[in-house]
Amino acid sequence: MLGLETKLLEHQDITKVKVRFNDTDAMGIVHFKNYMVYFDDGFVSFMNSLGGKKPVEQLIHEGIALGVKHVDITYEYPASFGDYIVVLTNIEKIGNKSMTFYHELSRESDGKIVAVVKATRFAMDLKTNKLLNILEFFSDFLG
Amino acid sequence: MLGLETKLLEHQDITKVKVRFNDTDAMGIVHFKNYMVYFDDGFVSFMNSLGGKKPVEQLIHEGIALGVKHVDITYEYPASFGDYIVVLTNIEKIGNKSMTFYHELSRESDGKIVAVVKATRFAMDLKTNKLLNILEFFSDFLG
Amino acid sequence: MLGLETKLLEHQDITKVKVRFNDTDAMGIVHFKNYMVYFDDGFVSFMNSLGGKKPVEQLIHEGIALGVKHVDITYEYPASFGDYIVVLTNIEKIGNKSMTFYHELSRESDGKIVAVVKATRFAMDLKTNKLLNILEFFSDFLG
Amino acid sequence: MLGLETKLLEHQDITKVKVRFNDTDAMGIVHFKNYMVYFDDGFVSFMNSLGGKKPVEQLIHEGIALGVKHVDITYEYPASFGDYIVVLTNIEKIGNKSMTFYHELSRESDGKIVAVVKATRFAMDLKTNKLLNILEFFSDFLG
Repeated sequence: MLGLETKLLEHQDITKVKVRFNDTDAMGIVHFKNYMVYFDDGFVSFMNSLGGKKPVEQLIHEGIALGVKHVDITYEYPASFGDYIVVLTNIEKIGNKSMTFYHELSRESDGKIVAVVKATRFAMDLKTNKLLNILEFFSDFLG
Repeated sequence: MLGLETKLLEHQDITKVKVRFNDTDAMGIVHFKNYMVYFDDGFVSFMNSLGGKKPVEQLIHEGIALGVKHVDITYEYPASFGDYIVVLTNIEKIGNKSMTFYHELSRESDGKIVAVVKATRFAMDLKTNKLLNILEFFSDFLG
Repeated sequence: MLGLETKLLEHQDITKVKVRFNDTDAMGIVHFKNYMVYFDDGFVSFMNSLGGKKPVEQLIHEGIALGVKHVDITYEYPASFGDYIVVLTNIEKIGNKSMTFYHELSRESDGKIVAVVKATRFAMDLKTNKLLNILEFFSDFLG
Repeated sequence: MLGLETKLLEHQDITKVKVRFNDTDAMGIVHFKNYMVYFDDGFVSFMNSLGGKKPVEQLIHEGIALGVKHVDITYEYPASFGDYIVVLTNIEKIGNKSMTFYHELSRESDGKIVAVVKATRFAMDLKTNKLLNILEFFSDFLG
């Protein structure tokens, strides 16, 4: 699986999210909670850009959950209504039962960094409630 | 079941919701989407005030869904961060397979009406995907 | 302004929204609150498709609020994670101080109608808190 | 201000949040984004339990923003619809221009830890866009 691990660690995805009016709060900027929606879009886009045989949206219907264990997010600059946020995503680290994604959110208009995220996720079999080995999960997902 | 229908139509519940900062938008007031959360709190509170043997939160775990078919909401006056919203709820109409709730949302500080809602809901058995008869559903729920 | 009114009433816009995982609830489908986000996307897209000199997102920074006064929404069929929702939008009625938008939300994969919405909106000058005449507002917005 | 710093660091607040149906996702549990709403409730409750002369909700109207700079959140155990979440909050560290809050979220029914959060916040004067000294901010807020 060394080839798979290398492939995963070298892969990078870029997607774009538009800030909605209801993402903002009374300070006129995006509420800190909503950046989690943006990098989650980055995660979905990353997974679907790997070239597997099915979309990541399908996994939940097959009884596999990709859960979040830990999030570390630094807010650099506030986004506003109408901004397009570019989400760059790659995997920083692959462990046995968890993996850490790196997401960089920047404003499309001027490249200003909006937020930087490290999110640790796991894959779980919902029938057995057991955590899956990460490389085995990807081997199935992509195979 | 005439007694049950009368009981349901005469019942009224009042609950209170606090406006969170992230309920507001860049106009400084609550985003129109979020009033749906407030009257949904009113619905849950109404159901649990009827004196049944289990909380309405339990139904989903037992395979019964209380879904929303139609919402008619009039926005009268905007709520702001820190406001307490009083939600008055009663059932306006009980049909065969659906029922219509009436919710009146007002600001606690001065009684100003914030929004008025009519929400039509149904009860569905998730195993058969069949709609339940409303009075039979309540008879089970309360019995 | 007859030409303007006719233009507005004949205009139609179609945009697309992807259902996010966090739009769903424990019933496995999109929570009824979140359809308001989808048709609000339709509204923004409609406004920006009219060919004005600035994006509708700009208005709030210029002290003009486009608020929602009334929403009537019928839920026809539940959307799920990963679905693409096509939002068709047009103006149904232009009043003096308000206008009513019609939105039809359908699932892209099979055209199934998901929800039908009538949303009445107004335009307000935030400096004076006065409602604007709708055709005058559009004349400025598009001019 | 040594007395103030000691007072702030020794203060602790406990508040309670009820999990709403729309906080859950299609996995049947609370979506990871929504825990940010719960600990934000803990922050508001902590601030208002300090015994100042005005509620923290008032600050935004006076041109002071309490922003979030960094969040570190570990998800320990998933919360479900109907759970009551107890949010314990204290200040872990007071810097010159920022302070770090510690929040522990647990399930009321059995005390199970749901999530642990460190959130770094700042106070900003919205007229000058300058960060305020934390102890000076609290001295004003409480004085």
